[in-house]
Amino acid sequence: MVKTMKISARNQIPGTIKMIKKGPVSTEVVIAVAGGNEIVSSITTTSAEHLKLKEGSKVYAVVKASEVMVAID
Amino acid sequence: MVKTMKISARNQIPGTIKMIKKGPVSTEVVIAVAGGNEIVSSITTTSAEHLKLKEGSKVYAVVKASEVMVAID
Amino acid sequence: MVKTMKISARNQIPGTIKMIKKGPVSTEVVIAVAGGNEIVSSITTTSAEHLKLKEGSKVYAVVKASEVMVAID
Amino acid sequence: MVKTMKISARNQIPGTIKMIKKGPVSTEVVIAVAGGNEIVSSITTTSAEHLKLKEGSKVYAVVKASEVMVAID
Amino acid sequence: MVKTMKISARNQIPGTIKMIKKGPVSTEVVIAVAGGNEIVSSITTTSAEHLKLKEGSKVYAVVKASEVMVAID
Amino acid sequence: MVKTMKISARNQIPGTIKMIKKGPVSTEVVIAVAGGNEIVSSITTTSAEHLKLKEGSKVYAVVKASEVMVAID
Repeated sequence: MVKTMKISARNQIPGTIKMIKKGPVSTEVVIAVAGGNEIVSSITTTSAEHLKLKEGSKVYAVVKASEVMVAID
Repeated sequence: MVKTMKISARNQIPGTIKMIKKGPVSTEVVIAVAGGNEIVSSITTTSAEHLKLKEGSKVYAVVKASEVMVAID
Repeated sequence: MVKTMKISARNQIPGTIKMIKKGPVSTEVVIAVAGGNEIVSSITTTSAEHLKLKEGSKVYAVVKASEVMVAID
Repeated sequence: MVKTMKISARNQIPGTIKMIKKGPVSTEVVIAVAGGNEIVSSITTTSAEHLKLKEGSKVYAVVKASEVMVAID
Repeated sequence: MVKTMKISARNQIPGTIKMIKKGPVSTEVVIAVAGGNEIVSSITTTSAEHLKLKEGSKVYAVVKASEVMVAID
Repeated sequence: MVKTMKISARNQIPGTIKMIKKGPVSTEVVIAVAGGNEIVSSITTTSAEHLKLKEGSKVYAVVKASEVMVAID
């Protein structure tokens, strides 16, 4: 049902799902990535179900460049 | 001038600026992060100047959880 | 636990939390700002807890410039 | 040409355009709002032209609640 | 209460609400648009109530250009 | 170089590129979709080049549900 495609989003970081917290509309997905970092995503619960996401799934955290801010200490 | 603060954004990935491409309004910043990954950010050129960003700067790529999508192969 | 940093987001409006509505995954935060205006934020419930946000807290509403639209009457 | 509508975006802050910086694709708009604060918006140059934005224009800065982060000192 | 305005968001696609799923904080709205396509929106439940959205309502799906990615097969 | 993947973004509207306007950092892409509607995207120029986008290309406009607002007349 979900199409396979190549997307313009510049950031596609590979990782493994560590935790999923499902709400009625929104679901939080915590992805373990390289360097001991975590990336947290909030998507619709319907999306999480379409992709059959579960703990241990190999995934990519995908982010459009215009959504990334830069910070310094 | 730029305030120091603690922010709700869940994703704060440390890295080093590898490349900056300045346009008249928007600037693209490529950040090398752990695992040989890169995170690309597009911010205003004014922001890049306020933070004095340059190649080699130690920075964080900051992303709100609601901006992160999840993808599978 | 939450790092202190200077962030590229151009909009950092000071205000006071007037109302918090917590859901299982998302939390709505209503911030009273200057001029009798309100700014509403939707963040993860986990973030709201990390920052220990509560009614009366002094906060900043932070928004990346690329997320701001302009409207006229 | 531009439709008049009521929009779900929770944040609609009134202000006056103080500065416009046009690039070939993106335009930065600085809006003076209550309390001596400024809100900066980055929109397409085409949008800025459709709305005939100029310095001194009375406008609203419009932001979806899911795009607003919260920060503390 | 909700102001009528002309907004800079470049994408204003007309459609009809097909389904609404309300959570405590977030509400998912499925909009049927031309060509048999659907557009899904996630807004605050408060917004959905302010606009009195219900199945069958004629609406516009509104998206800022900077939020639209492009993909190919 | 660009990975093929299945993405959580709920909105994947098929169309044909009608116009591309390249700036030094940002590129505007106008996509003709069903019903005589257009969807406008602003992506990095680097992304547009990676995907070899040109007028006439068959593409999808991809948008995360949390970026879609709802408006009424």
